[in-house]
Amino acid sequence: MIIDVPAESGYGRDNLPYGVFSPPGGDPRVGVRLADVVVDLAAALDDPLFAVPSLNPLMARGKRCWEQVRERIVELVSGEVPDAAVHPLEQVRLHLPFEVADYVDFYASEHHASNLGRLFRPDAAPLMPNWKHLPVGYHGRAGTVIPSGTPIPRPNGQRKAPDEAAPSFGPSRRLDIEAELGFVVGAGSEPGVPVPVEDFAEHVFGAVLVNDWSARDLQAWEYVPLGPFLGKSFATSISPWVVPLLALGGARVPTPVQDPTPLPYLRESEPWGLDVEFSVRWNGEEVSRPPYREMYWSPAQMLAHLTVNGATCRTGDLFASGTVSGPEPDQRGAFIELTWGGAEPVVVGGRPRTFLEDGDEITLTASAPAASGGRIAFGELTNRVLPAR
Amino acid sequence: MIIDVPAESGYGRDNLPYGVFSPPGGDPRVGVRLADVVVDLAAALDDPLFAVPSLNPLMARGKRCWEQVRERIVELVSGEVPDAAVHPLEQVRLHLPFEVADYVDFYASEHHASNLGRLFRPDAAPLMPNWKHLPVGYHGRAGTVIPSGTPIPRPNGQRKAPDEAAPSFGPSRRLDIEAELGFVVGAGSEPGVPVPVEDFAEHVFGAVLVNDWSARDLQAWEYVPLGPFLGKSFATSISPWVVPLLALGGARVPTPVQDPTPLPYLRESEPWGLDVEFSVRWNGEEVSRPPYREMYWSPAQMLAHLTVNGATCRTGDLFASGTVSGPEPDQRGAFIELTWGGAEPVVVGGRPRTFLEDGDEITLTASAPAASGGRIAFGELTNRVLPAR
Repeated sequence: MIIDVPAESGYGRDNLPYGVFSPPGGDPRVGVRLADVVVDLAAALDDPLFAVPSLNPLMARGKRCWEQVRERIVELVSGEVPDAAVHPLEQVRLHLPFEVADYVDFYASEHHASNLGRLFRPDAAPLMPNWKHLPVGYHGRAGTVIPSGTPIPRPNGQRKAPDEAAPSFGPSRRLDIEAELGFVVGAGSEPGVPVPVEDFAEHVFGAVLVNDWSARDLQAWEYVPLGPFLGKSFATSISPWVVPLLALGGARVPTPVQDPTPLPYLRESEPWGLDVEFSVRWNGEEVSRPPYREMYWSPAQMLAHLTVNGATCRTGDLFASGTVSGPEPDQRGAFIELTWGGAEPVVVGGRPRTFLEDGDEITLTASAPAASGGRIAFGELTNRVLPAR
Repeated sequence: MIIDVPAESGYGRDNLPYGVFSPPGGDPRVGVRLADVVVDLAAALDDPLFAVPSLNPLMARGKRCWEQVRERIVELVSGEVPDAAVHPLEQVRLHLPFEVADYVDFYASEHHASNLGRLFRPDAAPLMPNWKHLPVGYHGRAGTVIPSGTPIPRPNGQRKAPDEAAPSFGPSRRLDIEAELGFVVGAGSEPGVPVPVEDFAEHVFGAVLVNDWSARDLQAWEYVPLGPFLGKSFATSISPWVVPLLALGGARVPTPVQDPTPLPYLRESEPWGLDVEFSVRWNGEEVSRPPYREMYWSPAQMLAHLTVNGATCRTGDLFASGTVSGPEPDQRGAFIELTWGGAEPVVVGGRPRTFLEDGDEITLTASAPAASGGRIAFGELTNRVLPAR
C-alpha cells in the first residue's frame, strides 16, 4: 500500500522515528512510525538487524549505518509498502525502545535551575558558582527507565517538613514531573578518549521525550550532600519513539549567549541547541509550553563534559537535559516551579491544583521544525499516577 | 588432582569465590578460586551455566540455585578434581566477573562522613541532619566499573581552588582512592515491591572489594547541588573474585548502636554488619587498616532503603558501602582523610605523601572470619595510576 500522511501529522517521511513494537500475536521487533501506522522493518527490509526487541544492535553500528538505513527506509516508504509490514498504531503494543546502559540527568535550563535554587535554598544565590562553567548533572537509575503507558505508583519514602522534628515514612505528598529531552547514545567511545563537541552526531543516535518523575519531599530531605536518589529513582518514563538526530537538521539553533565563555572543551563550532516546543497536559488540559531552545547548555556540550574525564559512553546510554523551563511562568516544565512550590496553584479540571493526585494523567508531547518546512513530532509520553502500595 | 590448601590461604573450601577467567588459549568462563588455582566449573561440572563470560546467568537463578551450586562445588573440590579443569592462577586472565546493571554508592561510615563533612564544609555540622535517619547514597556510572589490573589514567577536568577566580581545565591534582565493600545483586525484585531487610540474602549473591577512585578537586567544584559526577565517573575498580554471601556466615556482627532508632523499614531482625578487615597498600606499603564492622548502616539496610520507594533491583546491580573508615587515624580508607586534606602527609617510600602521583600503585585486600575458624579472603584489587592523556 501507499501510506497516506496528512500534512499536519508530524510523522511524515522527514521524521521516521524508530521504536520497538509487537504486532498482534507477534514478537517485539523494530519499526518506524509513519502517520498513524507502524512499518515493520524486519518484514519490509528482510534484515535480522530489525528482528530484535531493542534498537541497541542498530544503534551500535554507528553513523554510516544509520544514514544508510534511513536512506533505505525513505526509499521504502516513498513507494508501495507490503501490506503485511504495515500495522495501524492502535493494533500494536509499544515497548521500551532500547536497553538503557547508564542514565545521566543534566540541569541545563537556567530558568529551572534558578527557580529551584530559589525554592530549595531561599537564603542563597539561586545559581551555584559552578553552574555557568559546566553542565551540572548526575547519574540516575537506569533500571527504572520505563516506557510510556506504564502506571506510576506513588512512591513511599522518608519525608521531613522543616517544622517537623523527625522524618516520617509514607507516600510522597509532593509528587511532581520534569519535562525533559533525552539523548540516546548509539556508538560508544573508547576508554580515556573524550568525545569533542564536534563529534556529537557521530555518537548520538536520536532523541526521546523524558518525564523524570520526582518526589519533592523525599528529594528535599535526602539530597544533601550527594544529590537526588530515592526522590527520583522510582520512575523515569520515556516516549516510545526515538527521533533520529538525522531528522533534526531543521531544528538546530544556537544556544543562548554563554557568559562567561566556556572553557575550550565546551566551545561549540556549530550550533546544537534545538528548537523543540514542548506541551505538558495535565488530565488533558495544557498547563505549560516549555521551549527547548532556551536551554543554556547544548546536548553536544553535555556529552563533551560527560566524557572529558575519560569516562566512556556506551550504546544505550541515555542522557537527559533536565527540566525544560522557559522565562515565562507558563513555560515551566515542573509543577514545583509552575505552582511556585505549591503556593500558586494552577486550575485543572476547574479546581486549583499544585502537586499530583492519585489518578492524574500526565502527557508530554513535543515537536520541532522539519528541514522541509513541516513539523517533526516526538510522540506522546503518557503515564498515570496510581495510589501508593 | 587433590588441591592442596595451605592453612593461611584465605581461599579454602569455605570460601570458593566466583570469578570469570580465560585459561591459556580459551574463552572467558566461570571459575572458583581455591588456594592459588582456578577451577574451571564449565569443564569440571559440565554445565553450560558456567560456559559464559559473566556470572549474571548464575546470579539470576536465585538463592536455591546458589546453595545447590555451592554444594556441588564443595563436593567437587573435596575430592579429585580433573586436571584439565585446574589452572594455576598465574596462567589465567581474570575479567570483570559480572555485567554491572546499576551502580549505587552509599556513605555508610559515620567516621568517613564526619571527616569529609569537616573537610568539605568546615563551617557546618559534620553530619547532615538526614545522615542518621537513612543510608545516604547516590548513583554512580556503571559503564566505568573496571576490573583489578586496569590502569587508571589521571582524569582531566575542571578544578577551582577557593582562592582562584575562575575554574581551569587540566589533570586532577588531588587524585584519591576510596576503599569500600560492594554487594552484588543476584536475584532482582518486582517493580513496586520493596525488599525488606530480612530478605537481603534472597537477593544479594556476594561481595567484592571496590575502589571508588575520586578526583577531589573535580568533585569539590562540581558536587553542589546534585552530587558527585565527573569526580568519580572515570573509574571504579572491583576485585576479580565475588565472595558468596553463603561464605560469610562467620563474619556477621551487629552494626554499631543506631541512635535514633531507624524507621521500621530499616530495622534489622538479624545482624548484617560484617567483620571484614581491610588493608590499603600504597606502592606495597600498608598505610591503613579500615575495619568494616564499624560501618553504621548494614548492607541489608542499604538494599531496603534503595527499594523502599518501589525501585527495582536487577541482576548485576552493584551497591557499595562508601569509604570504610574506622575511628582511628590509621583506619581511614581515603587519602583525603588519612592525610587530613593533604595537611598531614603520610610517609610512603621514605617520602611524605598526600594525594596520588603518576605511577603509584594501590592494592586493597580484605579478609573476614570463616565459620570454620579460618579466614575468608576477598582477593586483591590492584590498579596503577597513569599520567593524564
